[in-house]
Amino acid sequence: MQTLHVELGDRRYPIFIGSDLNPRNLLEPYIHGQQVMIVSNTTVAPLYLTTYVAALEALGKKVATCILPDGEKYKNIEYLNLIFDALLEAGFNRDATVLALGGGVIGDMAGFASACFQRGVYFIQVPTTLLSQVDSSVGGKTGINHPLGKNMIGAFQQPQVVLADMAQLVTLPTRELSAGLAEVIKYALLGDVDFLDWLERHIDDLVGRDPERLAEAVYRSCAHKARIVASDEKEQGERALLNLGHTFGHAIESYMGYGVWLHGEAVAVGMVMAADLSQRLGWISMDDLERTKKIIQRAHLPVKCPAIPLDEFLGFMAHDKKVLNGQLRLVLMSTLGKAIITKDFDVELMKQAILANQEKA
Amino acid sequence: MQTLHVELGDRRYPIFIGSDLNPRNLLEPYIHGQQVMIVSNTTVAPLYLTTYVAALEALGKKVATCILPDGEKYKNIEYLNLIFDALLEAGFNRDATVLALGGGVIGDMAGFASACFQRGVYFIQVPTTLLSQVDSSVGGKTGINHPLGKNMIGAFQQPQVVLADMAQLVTLPTRELSAGLAEVIKYALLGDVDFLDWLERHIDDLVGRDPERLAEAVYRSCAHKARIVASDEKEQGERALLNLGHTFGHAIESYMGYGVWLHGEAVAVGMVMAADLSQRLGWISMDDLERTKKIIQRAHLPVKCPAIPLDEFLGFMAHDKKVLNGQLRLVLMSTLGKAIITKDFDVELMKQAILANQEKA
Repeated sequence: MQTLHVELGDRRYPIFIGSDLNPRNLLEPYIHGQQVMIVSNTTVAPLYLTTYVAALEALGKKVATCILPDGEKYKNIEYLNLIFDALLEAGFNRDATVLALGGGVIGDMAGFASACFQRGVYFIQVPTTLLSQVDSSVGGKTGINHPLGKNMIGAFQQPQVVLADMAQLVTLPTRELSAGLAEVIKYALLGDVDFLDWLERHIDDLVGRDPERLAEAVYRSCAHKARIVASDEKEQGERALLNLGHTFGHAIESYMGYGVWLHGEAVAVGMVMAADLSQRLGWISMDDLERTKKIIQRAHLPVKCPAIPLDEFLGFMAHDKKVLNGQLRLVLMSTLGKAIITKDFDVELMKQAILANQEKA
Repeated sequence: MQTLHVELGDRRYPIFIGSDLNPRNLLEPYIHGQQVMIVSNTTVAPLYLTTYVAALEALGKKVATCILPDGEKYKNIEYLNLIFDALLEAGFNRDATVLALGGGVIGDMAGFASACFQRGVYFIQVPTTLLSQVDSSVGGKTGINHPLGKNMIGAFQQPQVVLADMAQLVTLPTRELSAGLAEVIKYALLGDVDFLDWLERHIDDLVGRDPERLAEAVYRSCAHKARIVASDEKEQGERALLNLGHTFGHAIESYMGYGVWLHGEAVAVGMVMAADLSQRLGWISMDDLERTKKIIQRAHLPVKCPAIPLDEFLGFMAHDKKVLNGQLRLVLMSTLGKAIITKDFDVELMKQAILANQEKA
């Protein structure tokens, strides 16, 4: 087992990364009260809920559960309210802990609920997908969707501790494993060309779910994100680099309807669009663009999205949080393995980069 | 005009207190982006909305409005969502400012919306009731109610600036003026016996809406609260003293149904119950208890609540946020003008104090 500490001053917390982790021993020091609400979904709960309930009850905790339906389309205010209902029906107080057992949707909803319940209770994350292990377990971003935009309502809420157990990835659907790899690849593309080399050597092991290699990829991804988040907790500057591929990706997700395409799949195409625009701007070479597409394809991810009318695509991009004073900012690559955030690009080239990476209508 | 600075490090902000304040000049330095969403209600908007829209448009801002129905019963997740709808329909971004123009309900909802929209945008408060001027304008507590408890869902969100304009109190209903005075009296009872003397001399001027005296009372109340909040922003310790009368008061409000009794009216009776229990514990004298009741009565506030079955009263108290590890803590008076938070009291005496200050069934 490896331990990564996310350095955030008095909100510092550890991420434990390994296989077949012992939740009882690992969680004990990080639960401050007697009440634990486990939030999970109908897919994950049958697999892992009893293990966690038993571990917490063995610690003498009062455990309650809130099992939500599985899917991004339930990441809204109505289902968030079910967590509040469960917390209040259980009679839980300010010293309660909300434990997220599931993927990114569960982590976002449980985390946001923990940030708002009684104006803030404790939060623990047990991410059960590769995507949530490398993405939502670091950074404290939580929230829900709104019909007019993704993640529009939320809070920054840091967990007490994160358990990332590679053994749980055995049950992960292949498509979701690949979606997680999209975020892993993102860390390489945005700031670590050595990690890109490593991925090019080991991508087949990762697709094959080798737990040692997965743990290494999760550790390196989280370490990368943790370093950026520690320097920019509230996303005023550098942290925005983590959104490489996301402005395009959010537009794809929004157009398709949440949950039709996986977040990682949309980000994969979004990264291709960002790389393509970077190439059109003369910042990276055609070889760099091809290398970007190749590693994404080897992770069994799409490199094109369906045909989407350009005006609708741009409309969804305009709702992105990276619009400041009405001006769109994009995360692009200044060189391969180095991202920058910029509003200094030709909009016509951006339109070309979007259209070039769509299927023909 | 007087200016009070609430000292919270990099979240330091000023409260401007006076009559006929100039919003254009006072707000200008505190609006960081171009977009302002004014949240108000159907009672306040017809009185003051055009003034604020004009002032902000004169500053070149893009102004949108969200007018909610008036009342505590709308302080819920459904009406909160209307603010998110308005923000997204206006196309507002991360640099938006949400301005609360109204009483405590509007301040709580607009503040909470500003804390959650895009994980946090700017917030400005223009409290138009005495209660919100002395209470919700300091401290950053925002939130909404849940059918199972008051203020159960929320966030700590500090404003950029607060404008407390005594001229707006002219239109305030008498009952709401008195409800505001309940909180003013609270500051005297919990930590400032000199202020209690001052109130005993000037309570008739306050009831008569003398703007000079009101400004003085608002300034002293906010200064008192600001000092406590600055030392304990997240309510770990001393800040809980501000809840004098509130645990009893919340039970009264919850039983009656939100909005039937005004918050200040319930707190008034709650303070009598807290004083009564303090007297039964031998901490304050019968004279102190009578003095407490007298100043509350002179502010035209109730000192008894309707008959409420004891088990229901206690049930609502158990949902209070001051329950820690299942144990009820109360704010009581160790002497007149000095509150303490304690779990060290005889529950039977507490029941007597509750029953003694109810109307006969």
